[in-house]
Amino acid sequence: MSTPPTRTPRSGRRTAVASIERGAESRDERKARTRRALLDTALDALRDESFTSLSLREVAKGAGIVPTAFYRHFPDMDSLGIALVDESIGSLHELLRDARANAESDAHLIRGSLRILVDHVDAHERHFRFLARERFGGSAILRKAIGLEVRMFATELAVDLARVPEIGAWPSRDIQLLADLIVTLIVATIEDLVEADDADAVAAAVEAAATQMRMVLLGVGAWHPVTPRR
Amino acid sequence: MSTPPTRTPRSGRRTAVASIERGAESRDERKARTRRALLDTALDALRDESFTSLSLREVAKGAGIVPTAFYRHFPDMDSLGIALVDESIGSLHELLRDARANAESDAHLIRGSLRILVDHVDAHERHFRFLARERFGGSAILRKAIGLEVRMFATELAVDLARVPEIGAWPSRDIQLLADLIVTLIVATIEDLVEADDADAVAAAVEAAATQMRMVLLGVGAWHPVTPRR
Repeated sequence: MSTPPTRTPRSGRRTAVASIERGAESRDERKARTRRALLDTALDALRDESFTSLSLREVAKGAGIVPTAFYRHFPDMDSLGIALVDESIGSLHELLRDARANAESDAHLIRGSLRILVDHVDAHERHFRFLARERFGGSAILRKAIGLEVRMFATELAVDLARVPEIGAWPSRDIQLLADLIVTLIVATIEDLVEADDADAVAAAVEAAATQMRMVLLGVGAWHPVTPRR
Repeated sequence: MSTPPTRTPRSGRRTAVASIERGAESRDERKARTRRALLDTALDALRDESFTSLSLREVAKGAGIVPTAFYRHFPDMDSLGIALVDESIGSLHELLRDARANAESDAHLIRGSLRILVDHVDAHERHFRFLARERFGGSAILRKAIGLEVRMFATELAVDLARVPEIGAWPSRDIQLLADLIVTLIVATIEDLVEADDADAVAAAVEAAATQMRMVLLGVGAWHPVTPRR
């Protein structure tokens, strides 16, 4: 599922002139292409390697540049790792927020969000395998960056949940815990999707997630924020 | 929290005689001690390294033996990794099964199981950090071994859940999905406990897990195995 680095369409007057004159890329285009090649080389290597064992030298070589040229693109390897986190989980963020804003019912929301999740994980399979591993990996900076993204997810979801009449009256701590529970289920589903090796396994993971999400949401109706005394 | 390799108490006639004669360990004792040293060396290295980047040579050196002597203890590095999986998740298995068998109520069960979980993760912190990482790590054999343990957990839990009158009438698929959901929550709690760096963080993780577990179990009362038509 690895996409080869693509050339971005040319734009800008100077670029156009340069292209006509020499048939060459602009400096920005070349820079963007090299950056993409660095990210793709890292993603390919990270299939089998952990992030901390991946060297700057190895990534530079894969992208066809000398090691010192790496620093024109990223200040260090951790920054490259964080760029990979942004590309995958950051963009998923927006997609799911739109789904929540536009859903007509709970059932629509669950199905719609799962569809988005499956497509996104499928299109970014290498990214999510990297995320699943590095969430508890050797780089503290990456662990923190991934943890922060997951928490931001849960906080945003809590804000949306608070708008649901049944839930809005709960103490905010309980709303946050429900959001965390749902995000835990989403993370587990992503991990199942990453491990799924055929269409049947993907379908099974989606079915399981949809049912479990309904189970969680059913508890909402019965929830009493303060434990009743018996 | 790393426990130093302890000498096992001496037993057996030949051993006793040998000990008196030479003040030395028996062969079995020495072998057990070296095996423990190999496992502990690996666990220490795995704090910062991924399993696939850990070499047999490095582990043997840490345990004070030559590389070829490693094979007296494990046929290969993957087998050493599987021994670490057994030591941590395998023993947790039994502890939680006993808790389920002896609990007087749901509330007792949740609190009792969480207490066991906290103590066990605390005593095996290096193990669980390794598990969290290698669940999606580079060794397919370890990924499979850890995945199998997690699934066994869920299957056993499903058998127990089927004995609860409210749940017993559900189709077995739904019971299994509920068990999977609970195990997902347990795994996430273990991961939170591994990341928790002080007593407050541990307490917060336990509180969150207890509340979320109640939320899930509340859904049970409202669950209809077949989606009702509206």
